Amino acid sequence: MEEILFDYISKYMPLLEEEKEAIIGLDVFKFYKKGAVLLREGDYSADGYFVLKGCIRSYYLIDGEERTTAIYTESHSFSPLSITSGKPSAHYVACVEDSMLIVANVSMEQKMFERFPRIESLCRILSEEMLTFNQASFDDFKLSTPEQRYLNVLETRPDLLQRVPQYQLASYLGITPQSLSRLRKRIVQGASDQSRVG
Amino acid sequence: MEEILFDYISKYMPLLEEEKEAIIGLDVFKFYKKGAVLLREGDYSADGYFVLKGCIRSYYLIDGEERTTAIYTESHSFSPLSITSGKPSAHYVACVEDSMLIVANVSMEQKMFERFPRIESLCRILSEEMLTFNQASFDDFKLSTPEQRYLNVLETRPDLLQRVPQYQLASYLGITPQSLSRLRKRIVQGASDQSRVG
Repeated sequence: MEEILFDYISKYMPLLEEEKEAIIGLDVFKFYKKGAVLLREGDYSADGYFVLKGCIRSYYLIDGEERTTAIYTESHSFSPLSITSGKPSAHYVACVEDSMLIVANVSMEQKMFERFPRIESLCRILSEEMLTFNQASFDDFKLSTPEQRYLNVLETRPDLLQRVPQYQLASYLGITPQSLSRLRKRIVQGASDQSRVG
Repeated sequence: MEEILFDYISKYMPLLEEEKEAIIGLDVFKFYKKGAVLLREGDYSADGYFVLKGCIRSYYLIDGEERTTAIYTESHSFSPLSITSGKPSAHYVACVEDSMLIVANVSMEQKMFERFPRIESLCRILSEEMLTFNQASFDDFKLSTPEQRYLNVLETRPDLLQRVPQYQLASYLGITPQSLSRLRKRIVQGASDQSRVG
């Protein structure tokens, strides 16, 4: 499992042996079963997550209904708002699949940064990258219709269609499960009409 | 102008005199007139922005129509996707008001981090904070109706209603200017009905 992490990091900077050993020594590699809840509404958590393998999602419980807002898969990271704002979490985070995650809290990170400043540089670079990527995703969401959002997922994250239940994917796209079902039928129908014409 | 920046940074860590002098020496404080375009679709920019005073917005030109997706005011920062992805910008950034900004490019930052590692720590902390804040804003947008989004701006960023033209604010809220106008009337009417009853 460590190798997945080190391969990913090597795209940014190759880690030294002692840096790798220090990371392994931290005992941050955790396995969770599908359905496990990592964060609950009201929690004050200091733990951030990085997905090595698996799928986790963030959802809000509104009038008894789950509303999924974010889905994290391999190489995605997530930190709760409570770490920076001091406010309790407004949402839940749970595993959509059996997942292997890195779970690191703030004080653990701080000690690591003091010992290995290069790891702090790495975290800065990763945060800046996620920030611009998230802003672009937010822009896309604002500018697109539900159909365009679905087609965008089909193009950029097609695995989600197999990995995530329909009702979770629907609220992630900002629509009802019924709308998603109609939309999928329309797209499949459109594609088969086109193949008949072509 | 430097004092605004140093006051802001002091919430995270007080800067040493030599760090302050190095920042001043960089010549990163820039003044732009209202309407100035900082970034265009297709640009490969290495410049990031921090708003000291003023207001800038990000917008896409779609079928000849401007679609505003983000509005940055005092203490907000913005970095183009091209810095991390190497892709050209898909949108424009322009000044909504006369603005005093910090404009820093990647190589300038790198030199600064080498000389003053604490400034890299600061940038990591700020990025992580913006990241969780942006994710929360994105969640809010997905979960709320246009009316709730408007009320949210009224509560958290009321200055935008005075500072930003209606058509820009409308697309920022994901609605048409006509819908925004109807929505405002309905809310004003609701408030005046309530004050008559109360």
